[in-house]
Amino acid sequence: MRQKDPLLLGIDIGTSGGRALLFEPTGRPVAQASRPWAPHLPRPEWAELDAEAVWKALGLLLQELAGRVPLHRVAGVGISAQLTTLLLDATGGPVLPAIPWLDRRASAEAAHLQREVGQGRLAEVAGRRAAPERPAAVLRWIQRHEPAAWERTASISTVKDFLVLRLTGKLATDEPHASYSLLFDVGKKCWDAGLCGLADVPPSRLPDVLPSPAVVGGIRESVARETGLPAGIPVVAGGPDGTLATLGAGLTTPGMAADVAGTTDVVFACLARPRMDPTGGLVTNAHACPGQWVLGGPTTTTGGALTWFAEHVAGTTDFAALDREAAEIAPGSDGLLCLPALVGERTPLWDPQARGAFVGLTLGHRRGHLTRALLEGGACIVRRVVQAIVRLGERVEEVRLVGGAAGSDLTAQIRADVLGLPIRRMPVREASALGAAILAAVGAGLFSDVPAAAQAMTGAGELIQPRAEHRARYDEVFAAFDRVSEALRSAGRIP
Amino acid sequence: MRQKDPLLLGIDIGTSGGRALLFEPTGRPVAQASRPWAPHLPRPEWAELDAEAVWKALGLLLQELAGRVPLHRVAGVGISAQLTTLLLDATGGPVLPAIPWLDRRASAEAAHLQREVGQGRLAEVAGRRAAPERPAAVLRWIQRHEPAAWERTASISTVKDFLVLRLTGKLATDEPHASYSLLFDVGKKCWDAGLCGLADVPPSRLPDVLPSPAVVGGIRESVARETGLPAGIPVVAGGPDGTLATLGAGLTTPGMAADVAGTTDVVFACLARPRMDPTGGLVTNAHACPGQWVLGGPTTTTGGALTWFAEHVAGTTDFAALDREAAEIAPGSDGLLCLPALVGERTPLWDPQARGAFVGLTLGHRRGHLTRALLEGGACIVRRVVQAIVRLGERVEEVRLVGGAAGSDLTAQIRADVLGLPIRRMPVREASALGAAILAAVGAGLFSDVPAAAQAMTGAGELIQPRAEHRARYDEVFAAFDRVSEALRSAGRIP
Repeated sequence: MRQKDPLLLGIDIGTSGGRALLFEPTGRPVAQASRPWAPHLPRPEWAELDAEAVWKALGLLLQELAGRVPLHRVAGVGISAQLTTLLLDATGGPVLPAIPWLDRRASAEAAHLQREVGQGRLAEVAGRRAAPERPAAVLRWIQRHEPAAWERTASISTVKDFLVLRLTGKLATDEPHASYSLLFDVGKKCWDAGLCGLADVPPSRLPDVLPSPAVVGGIRESVARETGLPAGIPVVAGGPDGTLATLGAGLTTPGMAADVAGTTDVVFACLARPRMDPTGGLVTNAHACPGQWVLGGPTTTTGGALTWFAEHVAGTTDFAALDREAAEIAPGSDGLLCLPALVGERTPLWDPQARGAFVGLTLGHRRGHLTRALLEGGACIVRRVVQAIVRLGERVEEVRLVGGAAGSDLTAQIRADVLGLPIRRMPVREASALGAAILAAVGAGLFSDVPAAAQAMTGAGELIQPRAEHRARYDEVFAAFDRVSEALRSAGRIP
Repeated sequence: MRQKDPLLLGIDIGTSGGRALLFEPTGRPVAQASRPWAPHLPRPEWAELDAEAVWKALGLLLQELAGRVPLHRVAGVGISAQLTTLLLDATGGPVLPAIPWLDRRASAEAAHLQREVGQGRLAEVAGRRAAPERPAAVLRWIQRHEPAAWERTASISTVKDFLVLRLTGKLATDEPHASYSLLFDVGKKCWDAGLCGLADVPPSRLPDVLPSPAVVGGIRESVARETGLPAGIPVVAGGPDGTLATLGAGLTTPGMAADVAGTTDVVFACLARPRMDPTGGLVTNAHACPGQWVLGGPTTTTGGALTWFAEHVAGTTDFAALDREAAEIAPGSDGLLCLPALVGERTPLWDPQARGAFVGLTLGHRRGHLTRALLEGGACIVRRVVQAIVRLGERVEEVRLVGGAAGSDLTAQIRADVLGLPIRRMPVREASALGAAILAAVGAGLFSDVPAAAQAMTGAGELIQPRAEHRARYDEVFAAFDRVSEALRSAGRIP
């Protein structure tokens, strides 16, 4: 069945809220609904998400959308979601609240896995280091601290897969999500018996893994009646929000990278074959585009540090004014450096103790210098990831920029200048939802494959060239950024 | 001649302006006049002061004072001044503009002297390192770049001595001023023939050196007619503003230190005998109180960094509000450190390349954290000087606090807590002028000696005890401050 004027439903289950968008097959958004939420934080270092509440919120999002555009035009559904671990019982109900990526309870278990499995094998097979939010570490924590819940567990899942299960009656996960588990052979795209054994996870409890655009099932009759979505339209496997945002940026060509620049920057280069970083500094994932991988990872509070500075130090939310002040300062901020790592470093340093800093302050610096240093520091964080990718022998010839930072001319130009690479600034505001809709369009048969859908739905963007006259200056700034970052990390934690 | 109800005239020739105050022998100020000025900055790194213009400004200050209080009550005159080098010809007229301490033109000459004389001899005899503002370096620059002016020079002087010459017809300098020259044996309190020889300065051009309270001469008849000051009343030798501020804080007891806390903090401990720092980190001066020396020196932009932050980052001049915010933050600013050295480090590191920093930033920090970190960083800068003094074997049992920072309860308490020492917060607002008036009171015979005059004229102040419960925390903070400072200095200059 092919609808007339079909629309694609892209759903994004984010950390601080959910969004549902309807896109035309051109990529143009025609309606949007959103609801804020926050993870429950029952203890320090703990974070939880109520999967049933997310399911209810999804119903309200669809109800709101239906008030604007008739949902019978929807031809396919895709879901993007924050990384979570969710245990389901034999009936498909949650055994415990979902544990999102913010949660840090499994630190000891992550350290144990890192030791037991060893960096070599983790990098080679799992494509990343151990970390508290990885499902293998979380499952180990549950085995030790919630043995009864573990006993009742039939399936190891995610909030996204739970929503797909409710929509279609079918349970599966997607390759990018599985890539984060520390149980998955990222190169071969299958669960790894050895890793599962070391983590004491019986393969019988792991769901099938599908490529992101694969159809998990059709919308159930009961769901169709409640929501107005057509029964039977395909729901695809989808993927994690960071990966789907790179897809929403059009990342389907090896040699290209995407920079998803929000509170944090997520930077991934597209690869035609798997490439693992033996140091574990970079993450390798199966991409949402079948036959491809991505190499890179999430960084620190790049955009988040600017927001923090504006609201809590400068006492303003007039970001346009801050931008204008920063634009008047010369590249290099007259010797002022900012390390924006307010919550520790992730890719490629993975140092949770790292903190933010302004270094090189003089009496001549003004608020505009601090703002510009924040933007340049964010760009240096991205350059560090790109540098690590290139040092592994991969190409990065163009960077697709999406997310909040793409909205600022100055930020985009600084990114291009600091990276020394052309930036293609994409117009999409909800890149993860667009990525999910691209997958839905493929699942609905509107395009032959993901690259074709991405090309049609993401547009050309605006090309911003790096300015050669600032290259040497920013090379100096980046070298100083690295020196200062290393010096401060060596100086140890501030009590 | 003893006047009825005598007053003491204390004049302060500062960097950014001049002040003249009349004090009662109790130390109570009864009238004040002030005029702003700024050094002329003819080239980068150059600063100049027109001695004739300062003489004219002094006339206007006295005229303004005379409009408030009859100057015939004045019993003695003392002058405090910023450090300057001024060449006088045979008629007592300036050969060139005066070169104040801000001037950096003699950097190469300072480096030459440091090499030629050597750190050992500089420390042992001159009581300090070479620096561009030291008269020996400035004179060497003049010999090389202004040979004709050097040829016409009859006396090597200062702006303060020039004013005393105009007031009395007598030329001399004071022991603390001479201590800064790199030509003076600070321990023996006399010009050093060896240092003079190495700097090519003929001893015949050097003025007599007197103790600060010594009477240089009496007010001339012509000056008396023009100003209303009584003819013949004593004008004392006076001293540099930093040293006289410590005297205005009551620093005349070995075991005591003074912290003159303004844009920068000047910290000196009082000694009963000379003690030199072989590393040259600390400065040793003949004190303005005869028979005593002071050990310590000027620091960096302690108060200046707070003013800079308020005006140019937080965008406020409501220092009381900033103080209230900072007072709500726990000691240690929740892991945020500030290095306030916006213009480089002076005592005891002498690193002109050092810069300011905020280190340890997290998303949880607010403006109050940054403000408190600035105050704690300023206190750490002072503690570093006190620590160096104590490591040389000298006692510091109480610190007299004067200057702008003395006006804030929070700043004074943080100083006491970080130092782990009782702080005596003195009420005087113009400590340098009070120091000059104390010397004038001794010169006028109102007191038998400087300690007696200082005790009578400075008052008891308010004693602030360090809080034992914060001692361990601030020891940690100070250790981290040192580590971070060292790490950043090792990381090299930011381009």
